[in-house]
Amino acid sequence: MDTPLPRDAGVAAWKQIADALEAGIAAGRPGPGERLPTEAQFAARFGVNRHTVRRALAALAERGLIRSAQGSGSFVEAAPLRYPIGARTRFSEIVSGAGREAYGDLIAATEVPAGAALAAALGIAAGAPVLEMLTRHRADGTPISMGRACLPLPRFAGIDRAYAEAGSLTRAYAAFGVTDYRRLETRITARPADAAEAALLELAPGRVVLVTESVNLDQHGVPIQATRSQFAADRVELVVTG
Amino acid sequence: MDTPLPRDAGVAAWKQIADALEAGIAAGRPGPGERLPTEAQFAARFGVNRHTVRRALAALAERGLIRSAQGSGSFVEAAPLRYPIGARTRFSEIVSGAGREAYGDLIAATEVPAGAALAAALGIAAGAPVLEMLTRHRADGTPISMGRACLPLPRFAGIDRAYAEAGSLTRAYAAFGVTDYRRLETRITARPADAAEAALLELAPGRVVLVTESVNLDQHGVPIQATRSQFAADRVELVVTG
Repeated sequence: MDTPLPRDAGVAAWKQIADALEAGIAAGRPGPGERLPTEAQFAARFGVNRHTVRRALAALAERGLIRSAQGSGSFVEAAPLRYPIGARTRFSEIVSGAGREAYGDLIAATEVPAGAALAAALGIAAGAPVLEMLTRHRADGTPISMGRACLPLPRFAGIDRAYAEAGSLTRAYAAFGVTDYRRLETRITARPADAAEAALLELAPGRVVLVTESVNLDQHGVPIQATRSQFAADRVELVVTG
Repeated sequence: MDTPLPRDAGVAAWKQIADALEAGIAAGRPGPGERLPTEAQFAARFGVNRHTVRRALAALAERGLIRSAQGSGSFVEAAPLRYPIGARTRFSEIVSGAGREAYGDLIAATEVPAGAALAAALGIAAGAPVLEMLTRHRADGTPISMGRACLPLPRFAGIDRAYAEAGSLTRAYAAFGVTDYRRLETRITARPADAAEAALLELAPGRVVLVTESVNLDQHGVPIQATRSQFAADRVELVVTG
């Protein structure tokens, strides 16, 4: 990061800055998860305007090397979180086990009638009411995933408030008599993030989401939740044990 | 696909054509896996030049709706292949089980010294020779995945020729005393395809690959293969049973 910027190299200034920052990151300056200097600091250091700095940062974000968070600066992407997928998958346990702080935000909760596929997955009648919760999950402040979880009503009426308080669905379930739950199967696909996903997950245009779909059963084998989640593909490694 | 093209709508001609083709595909004309008319046929039908048709087709390919194969035209993407990931994962069995014809092409085979990570995965000394095979896997002619499989030498010397003949690694293994094999764990990530992947998998720029890394053990528990595969994310759904 201390490389001076040669201005006569026949390479655009933003590209030279991007290359210098990439070399610094590869050498651990700054290290994984750490914050980069501000645009103003870079502009002063390299003797360029902020537009040039912004272009260099955008180029690194588009390659998945850094994450730009609205209003709080840019961060080097941390090493991907090892995320086991199976019957016992729990976001909060996985993140805590990796020594990072887990938190789930409730973005919205609405009562909606279940469509045919959702009703079949939950074993309820088509059109029966479900609680649709849009959530976002962070590890140490970095968005890892977002999801749309649908839970049958009236059984789980009010769980959105319990979730918003607890920050963990596992803990919210306990208040609704779910002492244990397991996941049936998980379907995994991937595609470019759409605009809403890019905003919520702090992804540059063109970066990718891993999309998972799963159903959870309670301790009696009753379906309690059908979920579609989107993971920032640069930040996780889904692990399946054969 | 029979929609005439209104030329006065204030919408670019390529966009009108793309919209008409998309509506046709949504209605099953042509259906999943089927070939689209040629550029020349579309140009005649819509009264535009081939450049305009090409732009419309590129827009559909970039959204993952069609696949453009060099020299053989464009095809509607088929429904994603349901691809179970686990100890018993076999490409050929999965594809055959879906009623599609499986085939593996051997693109290249080279003897290389194992790097540290690969050597550890295979339980061999760093620098020991491995056979690196670059393969591509098709279902009914559509590229589904490509992979780089590394097998220890001298045990598997010549298996590249057996694979090229059999078109299936499972069958090639049988000739080398591997009567059964199982997969330890699979790590799954995703990212935009690079240029080589886009060419081999017939993907438009910006489309995504699911990347899997796994190790296979033979019937005695000895590591026989470390593989990194890239799947065309529009063409598969990886399924994990909890």
